[in-house]
Formats: sequence, C-alpha cells, structure tokens
Amino acid sequence: MVRAVEWREEPRPHVRLIDQTALPTQEIYLEITRVEELVEAIQRLAVRGAPALGAAGGYGVALADRLAREEGWTAEQRNDAITRLREARPTAVNLAWAVDRVLARSSEGSDAILAEAERIVAEDLEANRRLSALGADWILETTGRDQVRVVTHCNTGALATSAWGTGYGIIRELHERGRLETVYVDETRPLLQGSRLTSWELTKDGIDHRVQVDGAAPSTILRGLVDVAIIGADRITADGDTANKIGSVSLALACQYAGVPFVVAAPSSTVDLATSTGDDIVIEERGAEEVLRLNGEPIAPPGVRAFNPAFDVTPHDLISAIITEKGVVEPTQAQPGRAMSHALH
Amino acid sequence: MVRAVEWREEPRPHVRLIDQTALPTQEIYLEITRVEELVEAIQRLAVRGAPALGAAGGYGVALADRLAREEGWTAEQRNDAITRLREARPTAVNLAWAVDRVLARSSEGSDAILAEAERIVAEDLEANRRLSALGADWILETTGRDQVRVVTHCNTGALATSAWGTGYGIIRELHERGRLETVYVDETRPLLQGSRLTSWELTKDGIDHRVQVDGAAPSTILRGLVDVAIIGADRITADGDTANKIGSVSLALACQYAGVPFVVAAPSSTVDLATSTGDDIVIEERGAEEVLRLNGEPIAPPGVRAFNPAFDVTPHDLISAIITEKGVVEPTQAQPGRAMSHALH
Repeated sequence: MVRAVEWREEPRPHVRLIDQTALPTQEIYLEITRVEELVEAIQRLAVRGAPALGAAGGYGVALADRLAREEGWTAEQRNDAITRLREARPTAVNLAWAVDRVLARSSEGSDAILAEAERIVAEDLEANRRLSALGADWILETTGRDQVRVVTHCNTGALATSAWGTGYGIIRELHERGRLETVYVDETRPLLQGSRLTSWELTKDGIDHRVQVDGAAPSTILRGLVDVAIIGADRITADGDTANKIGSVSLALACQYAGVPFVVAAPSSTVDLATSTGDDIVIEERGAEEVLRLNGEPIAPPGVRAFNPAFDVTPHDLISAIITEKGVVEPTQAQPGRAMSHALH
Repeated sequence: MVRAVEWREEPRPHVRLIDQTALPTQEIYLEITRVEELVEAIQRLAVRGAPALGAAGGYGVALADRLAREEGWTAEQRNDAITRLREARPTAVNLAWAVDRVLARSSEGSDAILAEAERIVAEDLEANRRLSALGADWILETTGRDQVRVVTHCNTGALATSAWGTGYGIIRELHERGRLETVYVDETRPLLQGSRLTSWELTKDGIDHRVQVDGAAPSTILRGLVDVAIIGADRITADGDTANKIGSVSLALACQYAGVPFVVAAPSSTVDLATSTGDDIVIEERGAEEVLRLNGEPIAPPGVRAFNPAFDVTPHDLISAIITEKGVVEPTQAQPGRAMSHALH
C-alpha cells in the first residue's frame, strides 16, 4: 500500500510525498526539506485529499520546528512559515486543523511535536480500518453475495488519506477477505482522479478493475453489472445529505432506480452537524480551463464558457448507508434531520 | 447554419464535407472528387451522424456516376466503387439505405441520380424542421416558461444530419422564436462530441451556452438550473425505450427525480418496431483506447482495462415525450408495448 505522506529522518529530516500530479505515468517521490517547498507542493496539488492534507500539515509543523532549531530562526520567522503552511489551501479544513493541533504541542519540544503529527496519521488510519470493516460487513450482509461487484467515483484511497482509504478502504477490505469480484472505476472528469489515481492504486494492489467514462456509470448499474456503489464524502450534513465530487449523485439516482445499495464512506470528522441540509451547502465553482482543456490542448472552441461545479449533493433519501468509524447510519430509516447526530453520540 | 455534406458542381463535381475530426480548433472543408476519398473520409469519421452519412452516401453515388461517364469506367468498376462506399461503415443503416435508394435511379441518367440524392437531403431537413416545431411547441406548453433553459448531450445538430438537426433543431427553433435562455452542453466523453461539435455549432449560431462535464448534468438538473433535457436517439424500440449516446440515461434519472421534462427527438426512421424493448438492444462496446487516452496521451496506468459501452438505454418510463416529424408520443401515457406503433400510424 502506497503512503501519500510520510515523515523520514534520513539522510536529514524531511516530508516524503508521492507527486500525485505525475501519476499514473510517473511515480515520483518528493523529499521535502523546506516549508516553502511543502506549501508549493500543496498548492499545485502534488498532495490532495482532506486527510492527506492533514498529514502534510502536521508533518509540516514538525519540519518547521526542526529547521527553526537547526538554523536559529526567530519566533517571527517560525510563525510566518507555519502560517503560510496553514493557509496553503484555505478551503482545506483538515490542513489548518492539523497545523493547529500539532502547534499546540510546541512548548513540549521536538519529540512531542512529531509524536502529535504521527498520532494524527495513526488516528486517521485507525478510523479508516474501522469504517472499512463496518462497511464490508454491511455490504456483504445487505447484498447477500459471495463475491461483490463495486462501482466507485473519484479517489478515496491511500493517496487521499493517511493510508488505507475510506471508500477505497472498504474495497480493499472486501478484497482482503476474498469477497471482491471486480471494480468499475469512473474516470471522474474534469481532473480524472479515477483513471489517474484510483486505477493506479488498484493496479498496485492487484485488484481487478476497469475504467469507464462517468456517463457510463448509470447504465452499468441499470444493466445489473454491479452490486453496490461506494463513494467518499467532502461534507455530510445533519440530515445525511452528502456533498462529494461532481458526478456522484448520478450513481445514487441509478442505484435507487435499480434497487442497488448506495454507500457513503467517510471519517466522522466529515459530518458537519452545523449544516442542516444539502440546500445550505455552497457549491464551489472552479475555473473553466479544467473543462475546456485536456493535457494543455483545447477540446472546445475558443471563447466558450464552461460550468464547472466541483461537487454535487446527494439527497439523503438516495443513500442506503453512511459508514463512519463510529457506525452505520441508514438515512432513510432515521428521523428526518436527526440522522447524523444520532449516529455520532 | 453549417452544412456537414453538400454537392457542388464547380470547379468540377465534388462532395464538400466539413472535416469533423479537425473541429473545433480548425474549420477545414474537404472537396472530395474521388469515391475512394469519400470512403476514407467516412471511415476516419470526418463525417458522422446517421442522416449525415445518408447524405454522403447519396451524393457519393452521384459522384461515382459522373466519374464513370467522364472516365469511361466499366460497369464492374462502377459497381466496385459503389459497393466500397456502401460498406464504408457497415453498421450505419442510413449509408447503405441512401446508396440503394439513389442507385435505383441509375437507368434514368445523371440528373435523376443527383435529384434523388438531393431529395434525401431535403426530406431529412423537412423532417427535422417539422419535429423541431412540434418539440418547441410541446416544451413551451409543458414548461409554461417564457424563456427555456435546456441541457443536452452529444451532438444532434447540423453536423449529424443533412442540416438543422434533431434535438439541436428544437434548441434552434426555440432560439429563433426568442424563447431560449441558455443551453448546458455535456462534453460527452469519450469522444467529446458535446464540447467539440455541439459547442462549435452553438457558437456559430450565436446561441448562449456553457460546456459541462457529463458528471455535472444530474446536479445541474437537481439544482433547478434547467427546464428541459433534450437528447437524440440511435434507436427507439416499440415500447419507447431509447438507445442513445452513453450518459443519456443519467439526465433522464435526474429529470424524473426533479420533475423536469425529458425529451427525445429523432426522425421516425429511428423507430424500430421490430425491437420490443430496450432489453433486446445489444449494446456495442468500443475500444479501450477511447477511454484510456486523450489527444494521444495516456490518462490511466499502462495495462489497465476499460469498459466502453457506446450507448445506454433510457427506459420509456423515464421519457416525458418522444418527438418525431409524425407527432409527439408521451410513453408513460401510452399502452405498454404499443407506444411507438400507435404514433407512427
């Protein structure tokens, strides 16, 4: 299993990242020894995925701390470096959260700082392992199948997390139990995280799969070729409505029509009880170039406009189960508006 | 309005094609003076779309006839050329149909041959104009809106037909009546007919639009941003189930959930009464390279498999209206299994 983010002491302290922008054609590891290099790597998406950014933030504080001691930085220099790291991607909640959590250990010295960063990674891995086991149990019981055929969207694997994965973690768990038949992987336009990253991880892990265009997913489901759809989540509201990568709701609609279970897998930190329903989620719109160009080449006429929402919202009545490390919620079975708070307590 | 296929006499008799493989970055017209050049153009998809292939086939027979007379071909040479044309794309029913229809005029001389080819084009244009008017009427009445916001998939415009278009023809009609607000255009992976061709036609026609990835279409519909979805059809079965470009059913599922009308537009020749339901349609699977490479560059790891169905089937209970030049059918209102035969008689 690949590690998207690691701490290494030798030959000198550094953060080791796999450069996700070079995948799948090249497997390049970056040995990052300066905080500003880490900021740059985060900004150009060499590392992405909320929990992976948390790991990068935590180790980044450890790196700043070591450099500050070694090179005799002033308190101001140290603070500036950490602030730039914390704000490298303003919308990434996990990054700022991890930086703050590790920074709170500053007075206890270098070992305590690094230990806190390692703890964030260990906790994420533990949550992923736990939710993957719960998810695999639920899917095997619900489908009653000996071998399960899965469809998934975007990347929710080791590259997006500290290790193991969320939605991908369930797929991995099914595979390790010998209960996985195959995986249909949506390519996930516009940035192709499915064909570039998920397919790369599945190949590494020796898991049988095929890549399909996003438009194929509903008919793959309607034709009876899959037993369950599994996605991750960017945010889950109090009533279970789930924001995830654009294209996710397409699978949910097809699953409902075909009577196939639709499963959301995410750590409980993804649940946002302060947001009541999906209507309250602001949908981020990204730049047109992601849609209108590919590998730098134009694929639309010059001057054309694009509509490029980064994610969509799946209403909770289309979701069969939400799996976190704390348990399984079936939103359609729960009291409206209370689904997730019930699950987290 | 662009013409995908035309007959020109000057400077010498030729078939004029817009090279659709060069769009949208280059607008290249091919002046085809030899039958074998036309066969090659059809095979490399410089011209595509069932009615456009019909036009190419008809004019191709006229070209063969002129060359045979001018150059003193034997009957065998003439037959060989026409057979190669007829079989340039074996699955394209319209191509062989148009070749045979024009060929039946051979004994009447060159003028009768060309007139028959022109008649095929004129009839297609007339059918498109008629179904577009019927479709626009139905949509304006059903939605009750002054200005309509449309989402569409693939290319159903002048490039795919003799002229005017089917689904695109309705959009054009709404625009000419001053009743069109905007169009959301699915890019239509894997071959990008939406971003490459439909967006190019809309730009030419001065119609307001935005390109979106296919995965965005369902959420555009669920968010209330469109009033109607309009697609074309590759085949419509006796009960109204509709095969069309992969990704089409995604729009239909979202429309049903959101209560938005979902409209299929096609000439009545697309209706195949010999096929009862969508379950009887064999889904063509195309090569993996279309999914795994883009502009020649790999976008997935080496050795990965792809699943590349060329079209999907939208069940008739998800279709609000099927519009042909013969009228409007609302499949959910009709007697099961009789929807289309009722409409065609």
